[in-house]
Amino acid sequence: MNTLETKFEDIPEDWKILGGRAMTSNVVAKEVPPDCHPLGPNNKLVLSPGMVTGSAAPTSGRISVGTKSPLTGGIKEANAGTNFGQNLGRLRIAAIIIEGQHKGDYKLLKITNDEVKFMDAGKWSNKGLYDAYKELYKEFGDKVAIAGVGIAAEMLGAASGVCFNDPEGLPSRYAGRGGVGAVMASKGLKYIIVDDKGAPGVEIANEDLFRQGIKKLRDALTTHDVTKPGGALNSYGTAVLVNIINEAGGLPQRNFSAGQDDRSEKVSGEAKADEIKKRGGVRPHFCSPGCIIQCSEVWTKPGGKDPVGVLEYESVWSLGPNCGIYDLDTIGELNRACNDLGLDTIEAGNILAVAMEGGLSHFGDRKGALKMMEEIKKKTPTGRILANGAAFTGQAFGVTRVAVVKGQALPAYDPRAIKGIGVTYATTPMGADHTAGYAIATEIMGVGGTADPKDTKKADLSRNLQLATAALDSTGYCLFTAFAILDIAEGLEGIVESLNGVFGIDLTVADVPKFGQSIIDVERDFNKAVGFTPEDDRLPEFLRKEQLPPYNTVFDVPEEELDKVWGA
Amino acid sequence: MNTLETKFEDIPEDWKILGGRAMTSNVVAKEVPPDCHPLGPNNKLVLSPGMVTGSAAPTSGRISVGTKSPLTGGIKEANAGTNFGQNLGRLRIAAIIIEGQHKGDYKLLKITNDEVKFMDAGKWSNKGLYDAYKELYKEFGDKVAIAGVGIAAEMLGAASGVCFNDPEGLPSRYAGRGGVGAVMASKGLKYIIVDDKGAPGVEIANEDLFRQGIKKLRDALTTHDVTKPGGALNSYGTAVLVNIINEAGGLPQRNFSAGQDDRSEKVSGEAKADEIKKRGGVRPHFCSPGCIIQCSEVWTKPGGKDPVGVLEYESVWSLGPNCGIYDLDTIGELNRACNDLGLDTIEAGNILAVAMEGGLSHFGDRKGALKMMEEIKKKTPTGRILANGAAFTGQAFGVTRVAVVKGQALPAYDPRAIKGIGVTYATTPMGADHTAGYAIATEIMGVGGTADPKDTKKADLSRNLQLATAALDSTGYCLFTAFAILDIAEGLEGIVESLNGVFGIDLTVADVPKFGQSIIDVERDFNKAVGFTPEDDRLPEFLRKEQLPPYNTVFDVPEEELDKVWGA
Repeated sequence: MNTLETKFEDIPEDWKILGGRAMTSNVVAKEVPPDCHPLGPNNKLVLSPGMVTGSAAPTSGRISVGTKSPLTGGIKEANAGTNFGQNLGRLRIAAIIIEGQHKGDYKLLKITNDEVKFMDAGKWSNKGLYDAYKELYKEFGDKVAIAGVGIAAEMLGAASGVCFNDPEGLPSRYAGRGGVGAVMASKGLKYIIVDDKGAPGVEIANEDLFRQGIKKLRDALTTHDVTKPGGALNSYGTAVLVNIINEAGGLPQRNFSAGQDDRSEKVSGEAKADEIKKRGGVRPHFCSPGCIIQCSEVWTKPGGKDPVGVLEYESVWSLGPNCGIYDLDTIGELNRACNDLGLDTIEAGNILAVAMEGGLSHFGDRKGALKMMEEIKKKTPTGRILANGAAFTGQAFGVTRVAVVKGQALPAYDPRAIKGIGVTYATTPMGADHTAGYAIATEIMGVGGTADPKDTKKADLSRNLQLATAALDSTGYCLFTAFAILDIAEGLEGIVESLNGVFGIDLTVADVPKFGQSIIDVERDFNKAVGFTPEDDRLPEFLRKEQLPPYNTVFDVPEEELDKVWGA
Repeated sequence: MNTLETKFEDIPEDWKILGGRAMTSNVVAKEVPPDCHPLGPNNKLVLSPGMVTGSAAPTSGRISVGTKSPLTGGIKEANAGTNFGQNLGRLRIAAIIIEGQHKGDYKLLKITNDEVKFMDAGKWSNKGLYDAYKELYKEFGDKVAIAGVGIAAEMLGAASGVCFNDPEGLPSRYAGRGGVGAVMASKGLKYIIVDDKGAPGVEIANEDLFRQGIKKLRDALTTHDVTKPGGALNSYGTAVLVNIINEAGGLPQRNFSAGQDDRSEKVSGEAKADEIKKRGGVRPHFCSPGCIIQCSEVWTKPGGKDPVGVLEYESVWSLGPNCGIYDLDTIGELNRACNDLGLDTIEAGNILAVAMEGGLSHFGDRKGALKMMEEIKKKTPTGRILANGAAFTGQAFGVTRVAVVKGQALPAYDPRAIKGIGVTYATTPMGADHTAGYAIATEIMGVGGTADPKDTKKADLSRNLQLATAALDSTGYCLFTAFAILDIAEGLEGIVESLNGVFGIDLTVADVPKFGQSIIDVERDFNKAVGFTPEDDRLPEFLRKEQLPPYNTVFDVPEEELDKVWGA
């Protein structure tokens, strides 16, 4: 970015098969000095499609974004489902690495089969992403994929994500977490446009094996209750969990002050699906072409106006019950504001809740919440505080009850009620992240076996899930394929065969956790070089001391159990 | 504070001789859980007079304040020169330990020879400390000593200090660093009033030995060029260093963008002493009764109006050249604002400079700097950002050039020009702190030997100074006695004899560094338990990469040399 030059590099021999998180984490670990400022010229931003992304493999449209995080200070991988990674895959681009810093007006990077070039993007500064994406599609054609950063990232806010388009061109698919948007903005880069017209497509070494693999996976996905057409995710989206987690007493209410509230039902996946039907939204919907699960949707205002994109479970929770807000229209408006500003919704809902506790507003204050979004949009001092995350907001407004690990806000499962997910929050190299080792599957949904949510012996469960997830986040397959393959062995076989088919290699199912471990090792080594210790693998004090109603439990997983995850 | 109860405890047998930093650090390390929130109920605030404080020992009026710091996250000791510690010493109170949290209006703790009681202090909320101290003296009599926190601490700002009175009753003597003020405010405690009327005085076990010791020290202090009456400190105050450090190219200008500027002379100690004479201030002056050095002063507006108290070298630099401001009246106004708000002046000048770089104002903008102080006074969102320190301000306003170690802003010596002080900044458990191991003495002033400022082999120098300082910070003797005792062996003998005299023990000069090491060990163990590693003992990236004019050097002390200090 210093000189606005681009160049292609061959993939190093031992990274040939890498994609997604395996690629971003290896590049960051090798090329980013651990002691660099995350928003300075020596950090890098890496975007990499999954190993099979762009091929005909089902539900494999993930793109990973990796960097040194300005939120956690450690290594970060955040991923999204969108056609962006598919376009890159078909162009046979294994990764985009953004280096250095451009000063002055923002730039746009355009990638086609014929050229890679920088263009001016200054005119989109201070503009909401809904309008900007419309204009970008007008300018670059409606087949391109877009990665972009919004106003929150322009302020270098540590709560800003990298935004991708959904199939309607809405700015609603996010590599949201860890402030990856701020890193992109710090480089002077506003958008990346990828046009795959004339692309050669993903090279497949063994077409028969690949076909055999994806058939097995497709069979598993279309069979399992969670992932099949008409199944839970397809019918209600991820917000199907609202009622389930509320029932379990683990749906955090009003900045983690309780784990259950009867009003939560009003914002459940079931209620939302009904409402979408009524008002003319779209449901089910896919985030990227070729998805079988199709858990997504297009939420709108009544009459189909102001389409938002998906309202995920995490967003419904964070912007809803965690702020004492129990109506879908307000949640939809807040989610639209997050998307428009380029803000991670999980962090955003925690920010609002902490600010409410800090007296900037109060729980349930719909107008106050929307006003805070306006503060960010206007880049006011309050907006600058909020855009920097929940921990930052807590410090500014004197709130000590802030649910973060490694500086990153907690997702929608209270670890006092469901201990295994707390072990993942504490020990993943990413900061509090449910996707890193989704123990909820086993503890609540009975997928991949069963486990008592209150049992504190969860090191093995969390580790096994974290290893599998690190591998899956590299393949490009959606994490939700895990529901099927944890229960149906042929599904996992199918994934492995599809990888072998693409690369002409001979991985086995037994290699999957080893592959995962190799990624986690690289990530933990980076974090160790930054200065992380087992003391960073802890939940905050108030979750260990303050009882969570209605079951009045604290997070009591012993430190020894946490340290057992990685043998620290 | 939870129950507003007070009680006296006997000093544990193996802590009998402890005072000052040795006392605060041992109490914090033993009683504060390393993983507690610094502003939560489980942190403690400890105030302890030095081992001989309150006795007739010259220049020994120091009071230490210790806690887990909300700025660094680690252990903290900050000390001040004032009669507060002397009053405590004469009451034979070895430490005040503030525990728990009081919710609701602020309280005041009154300590006399007859009683210890809480009183209401709500009426002093949102009030500047100059007015408040006047009212407190009116209410409690003009002989009492006061510790208080200001508006910055009311916001729980991590840049807030604990303020003590000077002999004129001005709120100008600070245990400034590390956010110790915020911890006191978080307890619900606004002021501590100590009245020593009828106090029994410091118990002296061996009066003859004590007298012999303090005579030797007095002789050293009155002989050495730096400390003697009419010497450098007495004539010009600590700001005598402005010209000297500017000449060495190590006086940071405009947020550490250069190390020298001809205009610095206008704010030198020499210029200031002239001006004080002209306008009817007081110079020399002492910070606490019984000081021989008398480096202090009372700076005023022309005509002797609006007395500020002392303008120390660090404050003159931080609020002056580091902000591109080169006039003493503006510096005086800014320093008065800091004192009034309860703000650490070193952190404050760094905050202003970072905010100026971030576009909130510009270097040299006198009005902009004063306006930022008003923002803090009004507790605006901008004020909340600023009150939380330079690193916080940098994150809010997207500034990556922020000179902090462990989150605490650098003092007035650029470590790129003077390497040894950089080794101290990096490796002291306190975060960037010049007093922790004042290598400037040797590198620039030729005290305690000589060392080339550009030489990077400074681990031994820094360690030896840090050990001696940890011991000295415990005795209650002012750090400036070190100038004399580093060069005059009898002075150090005198200090040791005075301690032996007070406690009836038989320390030797050789025991001093061992005593210092025992304190540093306790502090480093606490920080290790918090999660600090050698990676925290580093200077920020930009000081290692960006050359400092005019000599165009970077901080190039190898990590191995830094790690050699404590053998990490």
